[in-house]
Amino acid sequence: MTDPVFSLQIQISFGHCDPAAIVYYPNYFRWFDRCFHTFLQERVGGHGAFCARFDAVGLGLMDVGARFPAPAREGDRMTLKMRFADWGAKALRLHYTGVVDDRTVIEGHEVRGLFIKHDGRLRAGDMAQVRAYLDP
Amino acid sequence: MTDPVFSLQIQISFGHCDPAAIVYYPNYFRWFDRCFHTFLQERVGGHGAFCARFDAVGLGLMDVGARFPAPAREGDRMTLKMRFADWGAKALRLHYTGVVDDRTVIEGHEVRGLFIKHDGRLRAGDMAQVRAYLDP
Amino acid sequence: MTDPVFSLQIQISFGHCDPAAIVYYPNYFRWFDRCFHTFLQERVGGHGAFCARFDAVGLGLMDVGARFPAPAREGDRMTLKMRFADWGAKALRLHYTGVVDDRTVIEGHEVRGLFIKHDGRLRAGDMAQVRAYLDP
Amino acid sequence: MTDPVFSLQIQISFGHCDPAAIVYYPNYFRWFDRCFHTFLQERVGGHGAFCARFDAVGLGLMDVGARFPAPAREGDRMTLKMRFADWGAKALRLHYTGVVDDRTVIEGHEVRGLFIKHDGRLRAGDMAQVRAYLDP
Repeated sequence: MTDPVFSLQIQISFGHCDPAAIVYYPNYFRWFDRCFHTFLQERVGGHGAFCARFDAVGLGLMDVGARFPAPAREGDRMTLKMRFADWGAKALRLHYTGVVDDRTVIEGHEVRGLFIKHDGRLRAGDMAQVRAYLDP
Repeated sequence: MTDPVFSLQIQISFGHCDPAAIVYYPNYFRWFDRCFHTFLQERVGGHGAFCARFDAVGLGLMDVGARFPAPAREGDRMTLKMRFADWGAKALRLHYTGVVDDRTVIEGHEVRGLFIKHDGRLRAGDMAQVRAYLDP
Repeated sequence: MTDPVFSLQIQISFGHCDPAAIVYYPNYFRWFDRCFHTFLQERVGGHGAFCARFDAVGLGLMDVGARFPAPAREGDRMTLKMRFADWGAKALRLHYTGVVDDRTVIEGHEVRGLFIKHDGRLRAGDMAQVRAYLDP
Repeated sequence: MTDPVFSLQIQISFGHCDPAAIVYYPNYFRWFDRCFHTFLQERVGGHGAFCARFDAVGLGLMDVGARFPAPAREGDRMTLKMRFADWGAKALRLHYTGVVDDRTVIEGHEVRGLFIKHDGRLRAGDMAQVRAYLDP
């Protein structure tokens, strides 16, 4: 597996958890999304700067998924690591792993495309230039 | 107290609650905001239509608050009622009450202003025309 | 494909959307989860009642995924349909489809297991009795 | 004003913002709540440890409010400071200030009580021992 390009520390809090006292799962996707956007912030000055550069609406989500090998709870400190798993012609596949101590609590992916407005509709732009910009 | 101008039914779900098995409180503000925006949707076609009409960035929040006389839980069905509490020159005060059966679980307010971009900064526009539009 | 066992109406609001003015994607998973829990509420009296019946911690998530064929925006009214896609020995696969007018905006799944506490750890319980209870 | 007892750094991300490209306001309350719970984590080992010590359901919210002198946006780094504003007999008032660079973006409070289950109902416990424990 490739090296992580970015990682985020998440201190799991009471309010992230549900009545079963484990993380309410949509929060993991908030953290995936935040990990990617914080990477953009640090690498190229943020999503707005990226969009201006490519005349795009965004690096939008086309597909996402995850599995949850173990629960995470209040007080856990999760390290969320993001990797470039695959640069396709029209899509970037990101891979995420969330680890608490030595235990994997989430493993997942996002597939993102370059959304460009064209005649009032969104279409997927070419990723070669995006790769050169983000992963030189 | 004036009559409600809008109300929303909220079916309180497992995921709205925290490990104490009561509603995680920021959710109440998501419901306040959603109540106001659904009202805008039904009254004038949505926030976008409103902004186009007034050349505004939004009917933005200046102040908010609430108190919680009783907890709400999974399975509760809350009726959230919104009232126009006060139309000021530069701000609209909305009043909210959330009731489950005959028990008040939240009582609060939002103060919203007409945010207009002027020389790159936001300023508060005049509310008289907004009142004529939303509360004729 | 089997018939839907439950569906939820979602009025997409301003606050559900991000600066690209499309739904912030983790919200879709909040709606998946809410759809399943509202189904439980109506079928068997809620997640709490379910857990008491099976001496379980929950019908927890093991795997989830979705793809997004088209964006959804403020003012859209989405119908989210849930189907039992597969009852396995240790897991139930749910299938979700979200439609706005005649356009599919999300298609996804959840895999849920019966989480039972055993010697201080969670393990996956047998689903045959769960099936008889929820899908008789 | 008293010194802050705790502070949190928040990197404001794309997904925290709404279509007006400013922070979706319920997020500020998620950060208030998270600030308080992270304080509990560091001071006494978390909300669970606190509840065990006082045989309580929680340090629950009774009242909350905030005003928003200026907007915050993607890329802003907010410092959220928490102060003990008042220890009453039955309630603790916390004061919060969120600052980006030298600009205050939010100023608010939470009033929290010691929720104790008594004959199946929640009542507010005495705060003197809580003060001795959290603010010695």
